[in-house]
Amino acid sequence: MNRIASLGPIAGPDEAIARETARLLEEKTKPPGSLGRLEWLACRLAAIRRAVPTRTLTPAIVVAAADHGLVAEGVSPYPQAVTAQMLANFANGGAAVSVLARQAGARVIVVDAGVLDPPPVDGIRSAVVGGVRGTANLAAGPAMPSGVAVALIESGIVLARELADAGIETIAVGDMGIGNTTAASALCAAFLPAAPTDVCGPGTGLDAAGVARKVEVVRRALSVNGIGADGAARDPIEVLAAVGGLEVAFLVGVIIGAAERRVPVFLDGFITGAAALVASAIDPAASGCMIAATRSPEPGHALVLDRLGLEPLLDLGLRLGEGSGAALALSLIRSAVAILLEMATFEGAGVSRG
Amino acid sequence: MNRIASLGPIAGPDEAIARETARLLEEKTKPPGSLGRLEWLACRLAAIRRAVPTRTLTPAIVVAAADHGLVAEGVSPYPQAVTAQMLANFANGGAAVSVLARQAGARVIVVDAGVLDPPPVDGIRSAVVGGVRGTANLAAGPAMPSGVAVALIESGIVLARELADAGIETIAVGDMGIGNTTAASALCAAFLPAAPTDVCGPGTGLDAAGVARKVEVVRRALSVNGIGADGAARDPIEVLAAVGGLEVAFLVGVIIGAAERRVPVFLDGFITGAAALVASAIDPAASGCMIAATRSPEPGHALVLDRLGLEPLLDLGLRLGEGSGAALALSLIRSAVAILLEMATFEGAGVSRG
Repeated sequence: MNRIASLGPIAGPDEAIARETARLLEEKTKPPGSLGRLEWLACRLAAIRRAVPTRTLTPAIVVAAADHGLVAEGVSPYPQAVTAQMLANFANGGAAVSVLARQAGARVIVVDAGVLDPPPVDGIRSAVVGGVRGTANLAAGPAMPSGVAVALIESGIVLARELADAGIETIAVGDMGIGNTTAASALCAAFLPAAPTDVCGPGTGLDAAGVARKVEVVRRALSVNGIGADGAARDPIEVLAAVGGLEVAFLVGVIIGAAERRVPVFLDGFITGAAALVASAIDPAASGCMIAATRSPEPGHALVLDRLGLEPLLDLGLRLGEGSGAALALSLIRSAVAILLEMATFEGAGVSRG
Repeated sequence: MNRIASLGPIAGPDEAIARETARLLEEKTKPPGSLGRLEWLACRLAAIRRAVPTRTLTPAIVVAAADHGLVAEGVSPYPQAVTAQMLANFANGGAAVSVLARQAGARVIVVDAGVLDPPPVDGIRSAVVGGVRGTANLAAGPAMPSGVAVALIESGIVLARELADAGIETIAVGDMGIGNTTAASALCAAFLPAAPTDVCGPGTGLDAAGVARKVEVVRRALSVNGIGADGAARDPIEVLAAVGGLEVAFLVGVIIGAAERRVPVFLDGFITGAAALVASAIDPAASGCMIAATRSPEPGHALVLDRLGLEPLLDLGLRLGEGSGAALALSLIRSAVAILLEMATFEGAGVSRG
């Protein structure tokens, strides 16, 4: 059994604080509960942070990128070089997540978790472990040694702690890696567990033949790595190392580290959902800090959300990844906290209750 | 047949501009269409305004309030005085829509379209026609003379034009009026047409017995006003006057006036949906300017959206009205326009296409 030596205890949300927040919202000039998920969000943020918000939360977005050896199987319509090209695009502020992060007032931390031929640009945090750039082809054997997975998780935990220490109060997670919906599908198939046909979808734009190829790759990946229907009972880090991705491993660490520090984590789409699934397999208490930002059209995402007990805030047909959906949902925090802090009470405004 | 004498021609959206916007979005560094409704929104805003956006749109929110004689039927859990109390709350900036408008950077125009005992506070625009404050009980006869409905519509058109002339580029609409879900249900029953049982719901918090009472009130309203299954074929202003509300009539004018000026209109929930239904009955071209902000849990809302061909942007369980959902959705405009203007292109960023 692999262990994350440095991980502290995860306390989980404080439901008494959620109830206190709900009571405060009941004093506001509106029918009880009529602001729906906005009220829910205010209560969850309070519970996870174990404090009723007194101002909006300072957000950051962590986008981790890495390459995938499985692209040799022909399961992405994009060339592998796009991972490195997009890493530069993130660092230069031109990607969707860069734009949406500016709208949300969030800093973006761009992480190279193992990109082949990374671009020579500033503003990229390297988390490369022992020179491992790109996974091995998971359809032919383990994607990475389990020691690499452990080191990447540890590195993600360190980043989450650094951000918390620097005053970041909520973390959105995003991913980049050509081929990574296939790795995420394999992780879902192993951890849910689920049939490959139930968790494989078009990703960034596969046709039916491409999806069938993806299903076949996931089947081979599980078989060659000896992962059967008992996947959920196996050492989660072993399974992650066998069929995951380097950026996924790093994001698992970010999620666990955020949970340890009571920092709400905004999950993006399918890939970050798979990372969340692994994080909750490592420590079930980690799921308490998770907030699902968007519903992905990818079929496996619904199963992941269901397993984690999460209902996404937004359903805007986003299927880009990068943390773009999580960035968009971050803006709801400001509104949820503003409702709590700025709305008049029945008593203060002289409005009659029902 | 009642006529809106001052209404100019409504050109409707320019689909060629929508296609031009979509082409620009295809150059951006992301899989085609992967930003879903955000891309859709950019294209719709461009089509309605007949211009590809070159910066974000300046928004305003119009919240119209009025009282309803039908409260005598006991169909709201709140006392009628709440309408006037909330009018003051809007003007003082303490209501949910006030808070969410600040988040969206939107000015709020608070309109008294016929509130009983309006509060003596600044910042309220009076649209009261001939001293008519509060409708008559629609379950006993027409809610208002049709001349009052015409005058309120004209007054709403004037406001929309004023806002457009003052540089407002998108208008969100909201409502306040204790009892107004019942009037909106009656309008929907008449215009869709639909059975009262299909369009009556709990509103701000009725129990099953209350909903049954509401259904009965809507039945009597349609019957006493001689509106049968041919409601949709009748003079829409006559039907509006018979079973509508003063604030609804004013909002019908705002929507039509915005459409005339090619200003996108963000609809809120069920009441503004009913106003949109009336507006599109008066001039079908008006529906081209409409954007549905939120999905209301009120059962009639889904039928209204379906009829207008609208798919809401947000589904957050909001059922407050006031324009609160529309205000929340306004923030998506900034993100949609930012994607269009700030994202790097494949060529500019040196990213390979698939």
